[in-house]
Parts: sequence; C-alpha cells; structure tokens
Amino acid sequence: MDASGLLVDLDGTLYVGGGAISGAVEAVERLKDSGISLRFVTNTTRKPRREVHEGLVRLGFGIEEREIITPARTAVSLIGSRSCRPLVDESLLEDLIDVRMSEDWPEVVLVGDLGEGFSYGRLNAAFRCLMDGAELIALQKNRFWRRSDGLALDAGPFVAALEYASGKAATVVGKPEESFFRAALAELGLEPGKVAMVGDDAESDVAGARKMGIKGIQVKTGKYRSGDESNADLAVDSFADLAEALQSKS
Amino acid sequence: MDASGLLVDLDGTLYVGGGAISGAVEAVERLKDSGISLRFVTNTTRKPRREVHEGLVRLGFGIEEREIITPARTAVSLIGSRSCRPLVDESLLEDLIDVRMSEDWPEVVLVGDLGEGFSYGRLNAAFRCLMDGAELIALQKNRFWRRSDGLALDAGPFVAALEYASGKAATVVGKPEESFFRAALAELGLEPGKVAMVGDDAESDVAGARKMGIKGIQVKTGKYRSGDESNADLAVDSFADLAEALQSKS
Repeated sequence: MDASGLLVDLDGTLYVGGGAISGAVEAVERLKDSGISLRFVTNTTRKPRREVHEGLVRLGFGIEEREIITPARTAVSLIGSRSCRPLVDESLLEDLIDVRMSEDWPEVVLVGDLGEGFSYGRLNAAFRCLMDGAELIALQKNRFWRRSDGLALDAGPFVAALEYASGKAATVVGKPEESFFRAALAELGLEPGKVAMVGDDAESDVAGARKMGIKGIQVKTGKYRSGDESNADLAVDSFADLAEALQSKS
Repeated sequence: MDASGLLVDLDGTLYVGGGAISGAVEAVERLKDSGISLRFVTNTTRKPRREVHEGLVRLGFGIEEREIITPARTAVSLIGSRSCRPLVDESLLEDLIDVRMSEDWPEVVLVGDLGEGFSYGRLNAAFRCLMDGAELIALQKNRFWRRSDGLALDAGPFVAALEYASGKAATVVGKPEESFFRAALAELGLEPGKVAMVGDDAESDVAGARKMGIKGIQVKTGKYRSGDESNADLAVDSFADLAEALQSKS
C-alpha cells in the first residue's frame, strides 16, 4: 500500500489497557524513519492532550504533543464565543480554557466521555438545557471501548440518549466525522488518496476514513471483533506489523 | 365526539405530582355513569399495578385494579419462558413474578424506568448481555415526564442509549406501540373507531392512538407544551372538561 501520510488511532491500536502493543513503539520509529508523516487521531475525551502525550512518552513512544489531534482541542473553534455547559471529564477543562462556561443558561451543551460520571442527575440537567434552547455538541459518538475487564459504554450511547430525549441531533466533533478527518489532512498537508488511517474501530477509524477517500487499515487488537476487517483496505494483526506491510508494497 | 370507549392516561392526565387534577375524580364518575367504558392505560414502570391502583383510590378515583393496563403486566406474555435480566424498579418485580430471572446469561434484557437508578454500571452490565446475544425489550420508550421540579428523563433515552451501543432495536411494549393499544381495545371489546384516547403526551398518547384509528384527545396538563394539540382530534384544558366535551356532542 502506498501512503505518504498515516493517521494513527491510539487506544486499542498503540496500547491496550496500560501497556503498549508489543512492537508498536519500534513500528512508530520505523515508519517515521521511512519518511511517512504521522498524526495521532484520537477520540479520547477523558484526558487533556497534554496527558495523552505524557502517557505515550511513558510507554516509550517518540511522539510530539503537536502531532496529536483530539476532539476537545478541535471543539474550541466550533463553540466559538458561545457559552457552554460541559458534560466532560473535569481533567479535560484545560483543553477548553478558551471557552466561556455557563451552568444555567448555556448556548451549547458539550458532551464527552464521563464513564461512571454519567449519572441520571447530570444527564437530566443537560437535557433541561437542551429543552431550553442549547445546541448539543458531542466530542465523539463512539459506541463502546474495550476496558481491561470487558466492553464498556463510550460517550455515544449517552449522546444518543440526549438526542432522543430532546429531539435534537448532536453536532459531532471526533471520528468518524468528515470535519475531523479534514482537520487531520490539513495538518499533514496531503490529499486523502495519499493517506491511510489505521485503527481498531471498524466504524470510527476504518469506515470513517474510507468515506473520505482515505485508505482504511484494521488492526486486530483493542475492540476488534472477528469480521471487522471485511471492509478495510488492509488488515494487520497488530500495529507492529504495519511498518512491514506498508514498506513491502511501497 | 362520539365514543363508546375511552382509554385514559394516568400521570399528567388524572394527576400531577401527588395531587389529582381538579375535577378529575368527578369526571371519571360522570363518564362511567354515562355508560362509556373506561380503561386506564399507563406507561408507568416505577410501580406495580397494585400500587398504581392504591394511589388512584387514595386520590378518590373510583377505579378497579383490573381496569388498569400496564406495560409490565403486558410484557410477561411477550417474554414467555425465556430468562430475563430486569433493569426495572425493584417494586415492579411483583408484576413479573411469572418471569424466570437470570443475571448472567439472560435471553432478554427488560428495561423500565429506573430514574436515578440508571447508573453507568447497571447500563454497562445490560449492554454486555445484549452483546452476548440477549434481546432488548423496553416496557416503554417515553422521552421525558414532568416531575414536580421540572422535566425529567424517562426510560426512553436509556433504551435509545442501549440500542445505539448494541446496534439492536428494542421491542417496545407500552404506548405508542400498536400491540399495547390492541390489548386495550381487546379488553374494551370495541373497534378503534368507537374509542378515544385521552392523555398529556402528544406522541405516546395522542399520535400513538390516532395511528391505530383511535381518536386522540390532548389535555393541557402534565407534560403538555404549547402547540402539542395541533395533531389531536380534540383538545381540552383538563380531564375535568372531558365529560362535558364528550357528552355535549354524543
């Protein structure tokens, strides 16, 4: 496969649980050495970009913070000067420092992944703001992710709950939204046809990228389930095999 | 309006918060005296039918328990001999006494209204059962209800969350499902054209009934919001005005 640029998912692709995928650190290095431009495109909404970066460095990855594209950082320009009620992990607020916050009469309700923090009370308060006229913006709409103890609900189901309750469709920021991939392509400075996206999520990563004309590569780690690779341009057992797969054909 | 039978919603129509709608007790009496057959059709899934009945009697309503049709009682035959994991208010279990329960490998996940009990952990456990093959049955899919302190999320948003997460469509029992109205018509022994449904919910009560050929009457109490009456056959300020509205034209 011929690719000058590569968009790389993080959780489930470079690491699972607390550990790096075996061989992934070296694979990132080899890919960079071979002249391929990399950007790391994550839907993670439970940590600020700084922490995402620190985590990758701790695992040994040679990645710079500016190479990481997150929904929260991308959402700031979408929200603009409007007031916002955040339904996001508290740690994420540092990425939203330029956003004007308002609990009572927000113009925007911003939803990220709260995990166990998705209580009835918080959802109901957000719902009332939507009924009072606020717009619903979702940092991502992933269905679930693979936690160390099994599958776990992501932000998507709670976004769907608020959409159903309010009758309003959310504006979604993260993968697989076109605007998010477009922002990543702009940073690479490449046309879609010269870029591949690699990830463990058959919908958000692979199908989302392919809809944009970006090649989709499925890894069989993370939330991968048998058969997920059926719509990918390429499937590899893990990210560690990717450098070889790309180089053998380029 | 000519109606031999009347289906009556409870919460928001006969009472709001803890109190009966002014004049509603007498209106039920007048309607019964005038020879109209009544059935009380509720999507309430936080109380067993016995308690629903006790509450109505306490408020002074001359209603028998057998006249009340609830989703839980209707769900029992739908579940049949299959094992079931309930995501319902504990008090509702007496209506499900004939259902075989199983926490770990259920064939059915049954969702009612849990209110504050809808925690991430309970939703995630149910989600995992669905991913392991269980069918999703929802006692109702109401969007919200009007609590004394304001609008409150009903079971519907959480059903929508589980549907989105699992990729499975729920089988819904309560209003506005055809099967639920059909069960009510069967109890009345009347054709749809001879029956009217009165309620505060423009979707579940009024639109649901009209889709079946039952006349839809909107009351302007409970969760009513301005404009909701636009698709009703008749609108009245409250249930107290209904006896007169029906009798003046019959």
